[in-house]
Amino acid sequence: MVEPGDELIGAWLRRLGPRGVLRLLAGSGEPPSEVSAERMAGYRSRAAELAPAADLADVEAVGGRFVCPGDREWPRQLDDLGDARPIGLWVRGRPSLRIWALRSVAVVGARACTDYGAHVAATLGAGLAETGWTVVSGAAYGVDGAAHRGALGAGGATVGVLACGVDVAYPRGHAELIGRIAEQGLLVAELPPGGHPTRSRFVLRNRVIAALTRGTVVVEAKYRSGSLVTARQAQKLGRFTMGVPGPVTSGLSAGVHKLLRGEAALVTDAAEVTELVGSIGDLAPEGRGPVVPRDLLDPVSARVLEALPAWTGADPGRIARGACTGYDDALAKLYELQSLGFVERHGERWQLARYPRGSGIDRRGGP
Amino acid sequence: MVEPGDELIGAWLRRLGPRGVLRLLAGSGEPPSEVSAERMAGYRSRAAELAPAADLADVEAVGGRFVCPGDREWPRQLDDLGDARPIGLWVRGRPSLRIWALRSVAVVGARACTDYGAHVAATLGAGLAETGWTVVSGAAYGVDGAAHRGALGAGGATVGVLACGVDVAYPRGHAELIGRIAEQGLLVAELPPGGHPTRSRFVLRNRVIAALTRGTVVVEAKYRSGSLVTARQAQKLGRFTMGVPGPVTSGLSAGVHKLLRGEAALVTDAAEVTELVGSIGDLAPEGRGPVVPRDLLDPVSARVLEALPAWTGADPGRIARGACTGYDDALAKLYELQSLGFVERHGERWQLARYPRGSGIDRRGGP
Repeated sequence: MVEPGDELIGAWLRRLGPRGVLRLLAGSGEPPSEVSAERMAGYRSRAAELAPAADLADVEAVGGRFVCPGDREWPRQLDDLGDARPIGLWVRGRPSLRIWALRSVAVVGARACTDYGAHVAATLGAGLAETGWTVVSGAAYGVDGAAHRGALGAGGATVGVLACGVDVAYPRGHAELIGRIAEQGLLVAELPPGGHPTRSRFVLRNRVIAALTRGTVVVEAKYRSGSLVTARQAQKLGRFTMGVPGPVTSGLSAGVHKLLRGEAALVTDAAEVTELVGSIGDLAPEGRGPVVPRDLLDPVSARVLEALPAWTGADPGRIARGACTGYDDALAKLYELQSLGFVERHGERWQLARYPRGSGIDRRGGP
Repeated sequence: MVEPGDELIGAWLRRLGPRGVLRLLAGSGEPPSEVSAERMAGYRSRAAELAPAADLADVEAVGGRFVCPGDREWPRQLDDLGDARPIGLWVRGRPSLRIWALRSVAVVGARACTDYGAHVAATLGAGLAETGWTVVSGAAYGVDGAAHRGALGAGGATVGVLACGVDVAYPRGHAELIGRIAEQGLLVAELPPGGHPTRSRFVLRNRVIAALTRGTVVVEAKYRSGSLVTARQAQKLGRFTMGVPGPVTSGLSAGVHKLLRGEAALVTDAAEVTELVGSIGDLAPEGRGPVVPRDLLDPVSARVLEALPAWTGADPGRIARGACTGYDDALAKLYELQSLGFVERHGERWQLARYPRGSGIDRRGGP
């Protein structure tokens, strides 16, 4: 019903909550004074056409789900978008969007890139994926596709943020690539199943890429280019912006060089990217409750977590014995579980973090 | 007698003056305690072989001269090198080194550059020369040669700073280029005529390039490269350091990218270079006395200068009439002559700056 990034609806959601907005749009009650009757009529006519149950059935049919603020899988860094935050995201693929997005970098750039740009994007995608970083891009031709392919080829994590529904293969020529991302990685969209891209939707999609990731790397971009918009949005959101230089004789590097003459950092390989974006803590601060569904933990972590007594703490030695692991392994996993919000450390004792399980709301009360 | 950059001799020159150092080396008097007998013997044996009159005759035979601190043509910015300041420079070519160096930029880079590097260096050299900037480089193969050729091709100013005598064509393959620089531009060397380059002389030559210019642009350089040394010296001396990016897949751009990930500014064309280096005032601060020999002034400036009364001042209208120029032209030239140290302004009146003419020492008493 609402186009991506509609800040008016975003503000209403903040003030009235989802049910309040729905009541308002369903026709009961006076429209707020800040909106014209015409615009209100537009919302109401589109609201009348909504078929949310059918949308949910459609997304489930392709192995997807709808994730919204307050859900365990919701990537909280998107809240930085304020009233332009997506109302929710349609997600297709097995992994948790939230955990994958924790260590993610966007690699974006020109559709009509050169062989150089495609090579650099693929190498960067593979390098990031190999070191455990999620490669986020827009599944477009050129740089985007090369970055996804690099990550997929390295057997790593990649997220395609689409300007259409997660069941729509756009561009058509990337039908196979998009299918592979859905199999191995994640497809994410603001548009419901069946939704088709428009020019403005492409532009607005970029803010999701910028906000979802710790930083955005631009590989080839003309002087005026959508990728530069993404990079500037990333910068405004406090994310890292990076650019890969190229020949100054190439118009397709001119936009990147412009960026690099501003605030963006020059990077030449994946190690330089992760050196930069890895220099800050996890986007989800410690102690905010788990950010990862328990069933996505690796087997050793899961055993270590199981070995913790339900209500009392235990020292790492006892936990290691219970989990059938070595002391050092157990300790390493405990620190990892701590950063993910599952456990707490009190001196030598480790214990389960307490929070209302399955509520979708963590113990600090915020969504 | 002394290798370039010998800071011991530099310190002696500062303390004892040229005549004092000469007396010391001629053998009379005890050597200072800070120098070993062996080193002193080395200086003295080389001093015995000196033939300064023959050197001067040799340099005059190729249209050159010897310029040293205190001379009108001495580029004062070299004083920033402290005790490593050249004792003097052998200069070959018609223009004044001092005036040319006022608006100069170094363009340096790899000898074994790619076609891309050569193209960029030549374009940069031509672009800088076209906008009135002097292109300084080392006359080596690769980037250096391309930068000189670009400047020469644009009919502009270029200075080759050699690690050998100004009458020696090194490298041999650049004999024609070096000849053209001597004809159209300037050759500069610390070594006397006939001097031959060594590895250390190449390295030490770089400090002259760095100190002489307002900034150094590196075009293609491997990860460990002499050009990076020049750039870092420029930075230490408070000059601008710049780099032209290239493909990250090229090892010949790796050194430049390393520089750009540090303090250096990314530049893609001559306009970006001059925007940066042109943003500060002339290296020679106002009121320090003329930095340009009078006979190098353009005809209109020379007429305006002639039109000034010898001891009293005059207003721009009277000066314009005397010089047979328009009022605005005269005023513009007066400001120019002021910045070059020839004239002073007192309210509406302009008058000749007073300094002991022909002494080689300007009115403030410093060299």
